Amino acid sequence: MTRKVAVIAAGQTPYGTLGKSIKSLFVEAFDDLITSADKELDIQLIQEAYIGNLGVGGAQLGNPAALLVEQCGMPDIPARRVENACASSGYAFRDAYRAIKNGADLVLAGGVEVMNDLVSSHQRYWLGVSGDTEWERLAGATFAGIYALMARRHMHEYGTPREALAACAVKNHKNAVHNPYAQFRKEITMDRVLSAPEVAPPLGLFDCCPTSDGASAVLLASEEFAKKYSEQPVWVLGSGASSDFLAIHDRDSITSLTATKKAVRSALEEANLEISNIDFAEVHDCFTIAELLALEDLGFFEKGKASEAILEGETQLDGSIPINPSGGLKAKGHPLGATGTGQIVEIWKQLRGSAGKRQVTDATTALAHNVGGSGATCAVHIFRRDD
Amino acid sequence: MTRKVAVIAAGQTPYGTLGKSIKSLFVEAFDDLITSADKELDIQLIQEAYIGNLGVGGAQLGNPAALLVEQCGMPDIPARRVENACASSGYAFRDAYRAIKNGADLVLAGGVEVMNDLVSSHQRYWLGVSGDTEWERLAGATFAGIYALMARRHMHEYGTPREALAACAVKNHKNAVHNPYAQFRKEITMDRVLSAPEVAPPLGLFDCCPTSDGASAVLLASEEFAKKYSEQPVWVLGSGASSDFLAIHDRDSITSLTATKKAVRSALEEANLEISNIDFAEVHDCFTIAELLALEDLGFFEKGKASEAILEGETQLDGSIPINPSGGLKAKGHPLGATGTGQIVEIWKQLRGSAGKRQVTDATTALAHNVGGSGATCAVHIFRRDD
Repeated sequence: MTRKVAVIAAGQTPYGTLGKSIKSLFVEAFDDLITSADKELDIQLIQEAYIGNLGVGGAQLGNPAALLVEQCGMPDIPARRVENACASSGYAFRDAYRAIKNGADLVLAGGVEVMNDLVSSHQRYWLGVSGDTEWERLAGATFAGIYALMARRHMHEYGTPREALAACAVKNHKNAVHNPYAQFRKEITMDRVLSAPEVAPPLGLFDCCPTSDGASAVLLASEEFAKKYSEQPVWVLGSGASSDFLAIHDRDSITSLTATKKAVRSALEEANLEISNIDFAEVHDCFTIAELLALEDLGFFEKGKASEAILEGETQLDGSIPINPSGGLKAKGHPLGATGTGQIVEIWKQLRGSAGKRQVTDATTALAHNVGGSGATCAVHIFRRDD
Repeated sequence: MTRKVAVIAAGQTPYGTLGKSIKSLFVEAFDDLITSADKELDIQLIQEAYIGNLGVGGAQLGNPAALLVEQCGMPDIPARRVENACASSGYAFRDAYRAIKNGADLVLAGGVEVMNDLVSSHQRYWLGVSGDTEWERLAGATFAGIYALMARRHMHEYGTPREALAACAVKNHKNAVHNPYAQFRKEITMDRVLSAPEVAPPLGLFDCCPTSDGASAVLLASEEFAKKYSEQPVWVLGSGASSDFLAIHDRDSITSLTATKKAVRSALEEANLEISNIDFAEVHDCFTIAELLALEDLGFFEKGKASEAILEGETQLDGSIPINPSGGLKAKGHPLGATGTGQIVEIWKQLRGSAGKRQVTDATTALAHNVGGSGATCAVHIFRRDD
């Protein structure tokens, strides 16, 4: 259990409405990964691949992993699709991490999604498939609707102001301005969020992440390979994951994601750290309420206290705990299967000091939080750069 | 790398046209698994789950793994869907094996598929998704058609007689008569196979596996837990996996599956065995030609020599190398995502001497061979009982 694991290269496509196939997108992310490496990498040394994909769009609904590694020039490495809705590549990363722990030297984890080749009614249908089909989707519950229930209840229990939700969107758009890979690179005002068309009250248009195409990929390495091929490896200190009831009516609470709480506990234990050791985090803000819940469930703030911290600017880029410097799902975009490893691409850049104008200052330790469905699955990973 | 891994419980549903949901089926397989254990198992000790599913049928197209572990009474363990077409649960098993190697003590691997809730035109569509979408499916190539190309070419190159293919089906039906979990428990004659309606010549109706519903599950354990909870653990000696080009026109040969050759080589290396040490095998006979190719690519017979061996009865239950004592995909059935771990359920029973009238005599070492698509993915595992 003593093998160390590092991320030694990371790449992604821009997120957006791209009009490309999963093949094109994944190869583009892989090429970006190869370019990112400190030293020339022989891709024939890559031993295995784990690829997150929900399969929302067309193109290749079965066996996509073999197709994608083939397109990257590695037609014979063992590859599989890992699917846990929006947490697909968070889990792909977890399993790739284990492959290195278990003796491999170079393993690829990534994800890809094409969503914009579907008409909007089909997009809604597909997004619904990550909730409980029998009790939620077939009853007409959309994802925005489910998160709206959580938001309403959180407001009721803790007096959470509507503005605290809106502030997450405003902050994430502000961060994304400086991210060339982000889908929305423009600021929005609090007024604009509050006066936007309602989607599922209290959530309006700007409380919801967009529909995105995109791909991301990271290369994990053993300590030996990390030292050989990287001048600034980003070490993986801990991996935690958990599940929860798929339908929210089965859960004890809808103002907290139990899977997040359990996943972060495992990850911190493995890393031998406290949450206060984390310098910044990429969290799963598919809706603004999801970012607020993450802040509390991860332990950055006590239950019911995140809204105050948000409104005081503590989660801003220059705050006490910067959240989503990339722009988050809200503004960077959310190509479902690509999101988990996409968060890690951002952390890799930040911890190597190459995040440009969105750079978090003096960050050594970071956390990635990836949620599937409305909290049925969650994967948390913790990273640190060398001092 | 020294941690040993065992299978300590294994269960499945019967395969067939069952009219049940993935939830019902997976719980049924899990209950069968729990019943199979030598000592009472506290399911709360199970730490993680890997579940193969292609998602052919309806029910739950995204995030099914969380739903399935929830239904089994373990709502919070990390679980993910692993998808590699028909090799989904072979890969789920590989990743579960690694989780134990990496420090876990009890991990569930399984699979489930519902196929018969679709009308037949949709079944054909869904099966096609495991081939290359752009070059094969959209051009009208069915899976039977692709395997027929392989059969034709094998006949051309090696003079393989049509009867050698038919003999695989006859033998597998004969074995399945004694398997209470098999979809088809009746013998067929060589004449009947040869005179059956053509599906894709030279393949006829009885050269093709059926459309099946079903689920299977196996419980993997560390050495410590295996000794505590099992009187007859079945040890996992090696895991091998590989990929290949998705579309067959990209491959060097269509009379051989390169992914099978590479996967078996890795598995044997890890197990420190030769293929001649294997006493029997469950191989991926989605079509009769697939069984013949497996016999050669796994190394049981030289290229071009399997047909002679088949016709001489060497793969029969009492032959030199019994193949598919369960009845194989052909007669036991092929619920895509369930097939890989379903093969391991059979091996577990055989190696514990509990296979009844289909028992392979004096078997200590066995191999499971699971293929995705037309050979784009393959997982091979090797098992041994204590002497």
